[in-house]
Amino acid sequence: MEKPIGIFDSGIGGLTVVKELIKLLPHENIVYFGDTARVPYGTKSPRLIQQYSLENAEFLRQFDIKTLIVACNTASSYALDILDKYLEIPVIGVVKPGAETAVRTSKTGHIGVIGTTATINSASYHREIEHLRPQASVSGQACPLLVSLVEEGWLDNEVTLLTLKKYLAEPIQEKIDTLILGCTHYPLLSEAIKKVVGGQVRLIDSGKETAQAARLILEKNDLLKKDGQSGWHRYFVSDIPAKFEEIGSRFLGEPIRNLERVDFDRFLGSVNQEKILNRILHENN
Amino acid sequence: MEKPIGIFDSGIGGLTVVKELIKLLPHENIVYFGDTARVPYGTKSPRLIQQYSLENAEFLRQFDIKTLIVACNTASSYALDILDKYLEIPVIGVVKPGAETAVRTSKTGHIGVIGTTATINSASYHREIEHLRPQASVSGQACPLLVSLVEEGWLDNEVTLLTLKKYLAEPIQEKIDTLILGCTHYPLLSEAIKKVVGGQVRLIDSGKETAQAARLILEKNDLLKKDGQSGWHRYFVSDIPAKFEEIGSRFLGEPIRNLERVDFDRFLGSVNQEKILNRILHENN
Repeated sequence: MEKPIGIFDSGIGGLTVVKELIKLLPHENIVYFGDTARVPYGTKSPRLIQQYSLENAEFLRQFDIKTLIVACNTASSYALDILDKYLEIPVIGVVKPGAETAVRTSKTGHIGVIGTTATINSASYHREIEHLRPQASVSGQACPLLVSLVEEGWLDNEVTLLTLKKYLAEPIQEKIDTLILGCTHYPLLSEAIKKVVGGQVRLIDSGKETAQAARLILEKNDLLKKDGQSGWHRYFVSDIPAKFEEIGSRFLGEPIRNLERVDFDRFLGSVNQEKILNRILHENN
Repeated sequence: MEKPIGIFDSGIGGLTVVKELIKLLPHENIVYFGDTARVPYGTKSPRLIQQYSLENAEFLRQFDIKTLIVACNTASSYALDILDKYLEIPVIGVVKPGAETAVRTSKTGHIGVIGTTATINSASYHREIEHLRPQASVSGQACPLLVSLVEEGWLDNEVTLLTLKKYLAEPIQEKIDTLILGCTHYPLLSEAIKKVVGGQVRLIDSGKETAQAARLILEKNDLLKKDGQSGWHRYFVSDIPAKFEEIGSRFLGEPIRNLERVDFDRFLGSVNQEKILNRILHENN
């Protein structure tokens, strides 16, 4: 059997990346894991984000994945190095592809980044951008309310616009010409964001760019699926709350089929937790 | 050693209950657990809320607690019966005390309830109120954005007021004279809520009422601490993210001392998970 691509997110926002992947690579098999039992990650500590990321990777390893996509900006910001050391396969995060596209896109070098509190605190986008273009000036803004607004389905009402005006006041003052949507929930707010920042600011959807990057990396590593059959897609989540299928389909752009709930606490009881935890302690000391 | 009172919440909102408890019962020893690694519960499934509640109770049992206060509306709405069967000690939730006070307070019998999506879906307040006063009419409204607004510290700005106007439009139209704040985060929004519903609507802080109820139940069960020494207070959380102490102190009304982080995944590995999970399966079948 052809090995699948593994992909995880703290919840269901990562389905926007799956949607792009399916478009770009319709033959690939995909296993998705959304950690809906512990979502969100963006308000949690770096150490916990690393621990959860390793546990999620451990879950996906059961499927003999050929590459891992971390479709979560918060996890990509804190756990990419640790995952890269932990796994033998290519590990792809959303930060680098988003930063690269922003640097290519921006004319003035004034780039804005919006994301969760944890993502912005990590300065992960800053580092990537400054590495690629040392003269760039980066304006980062944590927007903790936006995920709740998307999940509430308030994509374009007056509360959303007012909230965006508050959050984006500083990036606008800094005269950014490019804005990175540094959270997989935010592309659903694109229209509202455009209204607030104006049509001349280019929005970068990190998830979309990541799907492109994944194709290149699979190609380079000769890992693309050989046969021309349509791929299968399996979706695992650690919780299925009310309205899950409705919200999930909003992200995926089609109804979610083959959805399975994992009892993650039970799964964790079956793996070598100590190994995972010691690895984090080791990395952090 | 005098046994402590155990109290848990999905996060730190339950500290508002601790604050009231300390005021009412300064001699009591208190152990608090906030499940900040998995917060929030209000967007999760009933089964998961039950599982987490049992796991939290299992953690607090280590301290030989004499009573358990469930200082979380979502957990009180779904897991109180299951906890009551699981533990040999009195278990006190926030829903019943809040509903009782609302019924006593309301003149017209038109009572509003705001809470998380899970709390409102459970209809827990509806049931308690209708049991106590069958003629009452209850208007429930899920307000998923409010927790994020409180944690962002936007307690009284224009976004908060606009959001409240949207959420409270229906309860206002129903001419409620009493509004239950069915989430421990909401008392921090009292001023803004008053502006929206008007001064004639009485706000019921379920947390405050629960501290009162706890005193009565301890008295009735002859469980009040006998000596006159000041009690000790210990605070455990499963994660300590950025700004934790700042936000926590806002709820507690004073700086948090004796704060300890628990590695909850490791703790879960050390207990009989199967027993806990089977109990939930058993209850749900």
